[in-house]
Amino acid sequence: MTSDIAINSLSLVGEENADYLVSLIRTTPGFPKEGINFRDFMPVLADPRGLSILIDALAKALPVSVDDFDLIAGMESRGFLIGVPLALRLGKGFVAVRKAGKLPPPTKKVEYSLEYGTAAIEVEDDAIKPGDRVLIVDDLIATGGTAGAARTLIEEHGATVAGYSFVMELTGIPTPPDLAAYKRSSLVTMPA
Amino acid sequence: MTSDIAINSLSLVGEENADYLVSLIRTTPGFPKEGINFRDFMPVLADPRGLSILIDALAKALPVSVDDFDLIAGMESRGFLIGVPLALRLGKGFVAVRKAGKLPPPTKKVEYSLEYGTAAIEVEDDAIKPGDRVLIVDDLIATGGTAGAARTLIEEHGATVAGYSFVMELTGIPTPPDLAAYKRSSLVTMPA
Repeated sequence: MTSDIAINSLSLVGEENADYLVSLIRTTPGFPKEGINFRDFMPVLADPRGLSILIDALAKALPVSVDDFDLIAGMESRGFLIGVPLALRLGKGFVAVRKAGKLPPPTKKVEYSLEYGTAAIEVEDDAIKPGDRVLIVDDLIATGGTAGAARTLIEEHGATVAGYSFVMELTGIPTPPDLAAYKRSSLVTMPA
Repeated sequence: MTSDIAINSLSLVGEENADYLVSLIRTTPGFPKEGINFRDFMPVLADPRGLSILIDALAKALPVSVDDFDLIAGMESRGFLIGVPLALRLGKGFVAVRKAGKLPPPTKKVEYSLEYGTAAIEVEDDAIKPGDRVLIVDDLIATGGTAGAARTLIEEHGATVAGYSFVMELTGIPTPPDLAAYKRSSLVTMPA
């Protein structure tokens, strides 16, 4: 089967490694609902070589210099899977951006709109200090709604967003203007 | 404030590192409900030195030899935070044990009882092969209900549990007999 996945920043780890990683991404049509192609990077993590290439690629494809941020924030829960190993490799701390209600107080919370209804995310007050520069990581960027909410939350701590680092980016969806102003990288791109 | 946290396998990284890590664990009384002392290891992750000590300690405190397992399974979502960096460090693959409904098919699912009601966890069929030996990791072991359900799920894939690796273990709670038969390690222990 021909893949519709295009290598973007993933080229930084070399063609052979890039092709190997792409071969591990699994596409499931119709999940979680009709008309959606679910892009699953779990098989990348389950493969020792795939996992190693993935974290290496994220470290090489940083949207800003490693000296330009202090902390990595990962979105619950797939962002947790890549954010911690990346932070460990780069010698940074890791901050969990969780769904509301799971972190002990004191926290800050932001609500944002989804296709249907709203969601809320939360960060512990102690986790981010005023002046911190934070790199936000997640597995996938689509409409950017969650990415924008995470930025608001970080700014409410008196900190700033240094950039965004994604594994996968969907093409054919307009980038929201508030996100376009920030540096970001994605390893691979694919049609929504 | 005197800590009620006891260093268990964490002693393997040396007294100074162990004390430093323990100093980062935050206890919040009354969360998520009255009578519970919430033990929060997020501040460990947010600290670059704390994060490095944590993963080093988990790698040194493995309950079995590194050659005695093939895969690391992490429980959603706090188990994700430690499972992936540990897998990367040990050259293993990582399998996500997710709350039901989030993984694309085909999957296997197991329901288990909570204090009130039931929960269900799920693993992708492709993620675990028959004969695989799996190390289960999570942040905290209390009653062992989730740990037992994960074992059932792994065995339904024709695989076996090699052991359990936890960051924190609550004392004063009887270990369920089905869990006591397995090797396990925990970095620190504290009263429930």
